[in-house]
Amino acid sequence: MSPPSGAPRRPLLSHASRPLTVTIPATNELGEPVPTEIAGEFPLTLYVDRREIVTLMTLGAAPEALTIGWLRNQRLVASLDDIESVQVDWDVGAVAVTTRHGLVDAEARLGSRTVTTGCGQGTVFGGLMDEIDAIHLPADRRLSQETLYALMDAVRHYESIYKQAGAVHGCALAAPRDDGCEILMFVEDVGRHNAVDAIAGQMWLDSLDGSDKIFYTTGRLTSEMVIKTAQMGIPFLVSRSGLTQMGWEIARKIGLTMIGRAQGKHYLLFSGEERFTR
Amino acid sequence: MSPPSGAPRRPLLSHASRPLTVTIPATNELGEPVPTEIAGEFPLTLYVDRREIVTLMTLGAAPEALTIGWLRNQRLVASLDDIESVQVDWDVGAVAVTTRHGLVDAEARLGSRTVTTGCGQGTVFGGLMDEIDAIHLPADRRLSQETLYALMDAVRHYESIYKQAGAVHGCALAAPRDDGCEILMFVEDVGRHNAVDAIAGQMWLDSLDGSDKIFYTTGRLTSEMVIKTAQMGIPFLVSRSGLTQMGWEIARKIGLTMIGRAQGKHYLLFSGEERFTR
Repeated sequence: MSPPSGAPRRPLLSHASRPLTVTIPATNELGEPVPTEIAGEFPLTLYVDRREIVTLMTLGAAPEALTIGWLRNQRLVASLDDIESVQVDWDVGAVAVTTRHGLVDAEARLGSRTVTTGCGQGTVFGGLMDEIDAIHLPADRRLSQETLYALMDAVRHYESIYKQAGAVHGCALAAPRDDGCEILMFVEDVGRHNAVDAIAGQMWLDSLDGSDKIFYTTGRLTSEMVIKTAQMGIPFLVSRSGLTQMGWEIARKIGLTMIGRAQGKHYLLFSGEERFTR
Repeated sequence: MSPPSGAPRRPLLSHASRPLTVTIPATNELGEPVPTEIAGEFPLTLYVDRREIVTLMTLGAAPEALTIGWLRNQRLVASLDDIESVQVDWDVGAVAVTTRHGLVDAEARLGSRTVTTGCGQGTVFGGLMDEIDAIHLPADRRLSQETLYALMDAVRHYESIYKQAGAVHGCALAAPRDDGCEILMFVEDVGRHNAVDAIAGQMWLDSLDGSDKIFYTTGRLTSEMVIKTAQMGIPFLVSRSGLTQMGWEIARKIGLTMIGRAQGKHYLLFSGEERFTR
């Protein structure tokens, strides 16, 4: 069946979200049994056109969006239109992606890898740092302190797995509204990079533009987090955690508005002051 | 100059520890300037026998130990004796390693990569999971609750960069003592995997055996953290954070004694109960 002429083609997707937590036995300092809910963590090996690319360890909440977003953020796929299907099969811990035209510059990109911060050893294939000069964030967007507070208030109602089980990071995509701030997506995963990749994938699936959005993360503002936010075209990055030196340097270089240590009514504005209004 | 016959050869090391924090300008919710101390973060590209292997993003506190421990934990080098020299040059962001006999099974190991949890996308080259069956931890070691409390008390006095600048993870190598617990090493880095790798490297440099030690981390008990602890031969793993499902499953499989959510006088014992005494 062909899509209507001119309409973007959507990949054929499985819907293989997993149960997010399991309960294990533990004992406390009194020797009492304490059934403890923990986050799931599963290997998901990514095959593209039958070629094995990488194994991601994931909570499994949004494996299709994660796969698409990982390919997007690694710049291995240029648009959603290039992806024909994404099929997750947890029985074998694999996701099979079929593309229409193969991966972009696969040999060069998959040949070199940078183990980035995040965890200190995240992975970006290819010369990501070489490409930041090409990023242009919109200069005319504004974020008000009022919207920032509304965002911080809104995210406190999410973070469900974290509250239950800990050991996960959450990311949110939000949009300013007249009466505050709307959370459009909230994704948790055992790794912060997975959560941001899943949001990047879902943004493609929902045809969302980043230029009027805010990206929120529970995790640290590392170089990788800054670069991925900017690659999604999002000019605002907010975290309740701190930042690293390279995250700060890159945010200043590309003119990202970056706010950290955001808790309650407190925050620190680290870069991109010109877009922020108190 | 030859070493005394029979003595282990020590690699020729640079001593290129960097300043750990920098102070950047920021403004708070009142618009007041707040000079903010943040953790350093620098790319360090690892060359072995002139071949580029990987780029690590690191705080730079212990780059030589990090390099050696990374090679150890990736099983690319079988013993310290195989490393002739480790020379860090921050001017070019590179560390040059010279081996005596090349890397172990380099083509196979560097050809496949698993992006592990930690951050969700850490990196372990080669089939690490295939090797956990070969790990045997000593059954006769014991950890008492008293020693655990002494450890938790001792680590509170460390974590200097974290207190100053946030955004780092700390790992400690500790040993039970009659009157409590001694911290033998404490390493902080922008990534928890770097911190554990740096300890693994320093253990080799100091000829330390892991079987009577305790490994402490501020970070989550992920599969990668469990495997690396076990590979160092350490039977006890303690964290103030939670754990992931795969971390728990592997700890049970290899019989690691694992304690999480350790704060003040509270903790949860997750596995390896037979080595723990209350």
